[in-house]
Amino acid sequence: MRSDLTFCILQFMTVSNLQQHITQPVTILDEQKCRQNIRRMKSRADENQAILRPHFKTHQSAEVGKWLREAGIHQGTVSSVSMAKYFVECGWEDLTIAFPINPREWPEVQDLASKASICITISSPHVLDFLVQNPPSHPLGVFIKIDVGTRRTGLRATAEKEIKEIITSLQNIEGYTFRGFLCHAGHAYQCRSQAEIQKVHDDVRAMMLGLRERFAQFEPFVISSGDTPTCSNALNWDGIDEMRAGNFVFYDLMQWQIGACSPSDIAVCLACPVVALHPERNSVIVYGGGIHLSKDRIVWDNKTIYGMPVHFEQGSLQWTMPDGESFVSRISQEHGELQVSDEFLKQTKVGDLIGILPVHSCMTADVMKSYLLSSGDTIEMMQRV
Amino acid sequence: MRSDLTFCILQFMTVSNLQQHITQPVTILDEQKCRQNIRRMKSRADENQAILRPHFKTHQSAEVGKWLREAGIHQGTVSSVSMAKYFVECGWEDLTIAFPINPREWPEVQDLASKASICITISSPHVLDFLVQNPPSHPLGVFIKIDVGTRRTGLRATAEKEIKEIITSLQNIEGYTFRGFLCHAGHAYQCRSQAEIQKVHDDVRAMMLGLRERFAQFEPFVISSGDTPTCSNALNWDGIDEMRAGNFVFYDLMQWQIGACSPSDIAVCLACPVVALHPERNSVIVYGGGIHLSKDRIVWDNKTIYGMPVHFEQGSLQWTMPDGESFVSRISQEHGELQVSDEFLKQTKVGDLIGILPVHSCMTADVMKSYLLSSGDTIEMMQRV
Repeated sequence: MRSDLTFCILQFMTVSNLQQHITQPVTILDEQKCRQNIRRMKSRADENQAILRPHFKTHQSAEVGKWLREAGIHQGTVSSVSMAKYFVECGWEDLTIAFPINPREWPEVQDLASKASICITISSPHVLDFLVQNPPSHPLGVFIKIDVGTRRTGLRATAEKEIKEIITSLQNIEGYTFRGFLCHAGHAYQCRSQAEIQKVHDDVRAMMLGLRERFAQFEPFVISSGDTPTCSNALNWDGIDEMRAGNFVFYDLMQWQIGACSPSDIAVCLACPVVALHPERNSVIVYGGGIHLSKDRIVWDNKTIYGMPVHFEQGSLQWTMPDGESFVSRISQEHGELQVSDEFLKQTKVGDLIGILPVHSCMTADVMKSYLLSSGDTIEMMQRV
Repeated sequence: MRSDLTFCILQFMTVSNLQQHITQPVTILDEQKCRQNIRRMKSRADENQAILRPHFKTHQSAEVGKWLREAGIHQGTVSSVSMAKYFVECGWEDLTIAFPINPREWPEVQDLASKASICITISSPHVLDFLVQNPPSHPLGVFIKIDVGTRRTGLRATAEKEIKEIITSLQNIEGYTFRGFLCHAGHAYQCRSQAEIQKVHDDVRAMMLGLRERFAQFEPFVISSGDTPTCSNALNWDGIDEMRAGNFVFYDLMQWQIGACSPSDIAVCLACPVVALHPERNSVIVYGGGIHLSKDRIVWDNKTIYGMPVHFEQGSLQWTMPDGESFVSRISQEHGELQVSDEFLKQTKVGDLIGILPVHSCMTADVMKSYLLSSGDTIEMMQRV
């Protein structure tokens, strides 16, 4: 009975071998595209005589880390102490925790510093007392986070008194080394053209080079800047020592909209089973919702969208390019609602597997917690606890 | 050295015993509030002579399931086959999978049906061929999902021909039993008053009772309706057999805004370490971002918000009520940015632990994957794979 049943299901689905084992939403990672994105960014960093210290928060995966190493990258950025721990265990020896130092994780940071070269980040002067009162048991580099316009966190470049106080206070304490200034132009995500990206970059660079000049007495130190839009496109990195982009390994619809990549560079795609059709309103319902894609969204052609559906090529997990008319128009916990073109609808039936290009690949990767390579192999990523 | 260090940290933090072990974002679950929410909803169902078949997608936890059982609830709703599997393994014997049946998981559904009483859901007629061609190996109940106005998925109540075709086709196949009509008034989430909730409920009830009348020839069957706003508040459930609310176990800011609960009913709260302060703009930065809260948001007093910060009472994991002026104004992957009142700012310092009441508790619970009870015990929930 079961083998007859299985046969019927396979017949019904008429899918290739690689697709037929997929029964639930899964993130497909195209290794070739990802490695190409890595190589391209490494070349850009090399051309600009900058160190590429990619942010690992996008992929959170030992395997993608291996691909980075194979491209000649040996320094990394993480956004949490847990992530630092994971990558130190994977053999990374030089990591910057580009997140405000969290006093509650101080013992864990000490432990990491005993195993690898670790830099922490100060984002507001209010943590200085804690750092002074708790000298590190192992050497720790310290970056000062500069708010270059995003107004999330960090000290203003004009806060000379506070910056000087931080540097001089820590200089007197064994174990701390002032490593430099770090920024993240989060406002580059508002850009929609090369010219806008270049403008953000030029402003950020001017601000950071100003620091280099004003705090010359504390040289040598590093100027570290990074976000995928400027790292992908902006010209003239003179005076910037480090590029810290993260999203570029996968890219996504947001980056495409910003102009940081083309749709063919997007290296991840959520594979989703089609579970219902409503042809009268060009609607396709997939198993794949907010807990798989995340609820990140963008406005595209005046519509709020949560992703773009694509088809997989027969016999593979390679996906086609989005048609520009089909969108994920709404998502709930497990449902994805697609508003599709007539042509897309015609090619789609219940039981099919379709792909969704994510709005924000970092968030999709994080909620899914593993990747299926286009080759059919699964690779793990860091788990929550 | 380490013990000195630990002492200094504890001094710096001046926190109670229950708070001091929290170093990273964690979801605090107030068992007492949760059990009270459960008891209140069970009483409402009892008063309305309806079965309470709560949706487990909110909590996804064996332990919360136990609390439901202790309140006399023995039937459940799930939104995925994986969730059904988890709860069957926890001893639940009667589950409805209130999600369009996914042909790709047919073998898993058969397996579940061999272990428990399982109902599946048909949301569009396009899956009928599959069901007809693949008779179940064990008895399966079948619900037809009715689109009562949300326009997500489901058949229109007016689609008499299609509904009849589904029922009669399956009647002829051994193993399937038509169990009734199921709806979810997702559009009740747009309500902002009791009167609006009542209006949605009255319309839904009229639509569902119309089905009861028109398809009387197929009685006995069940009319199952459920969403937390109407289940929490609407009057007159005559003719509705089942209530399928899910969110009510925790509630959240969205439900408070709708008018389905009061802020003191909210049973979950994300505990977050404070990592930076920007007093000049009343801004507090916490370790706790989109990967902890989810990116679900609501508009509150013309502002888009991602949560509301609260303080924990000294010496416990009990939280105070939100002050109505402090909000999570922006989130990125790991950063939460709070825009707070002068009073809130005055009470907050780097190293503190503050709480965030979530906009949408289902999503926050899902991304966090475990709960810390206010008592200090951790309870597990279903894991992705």
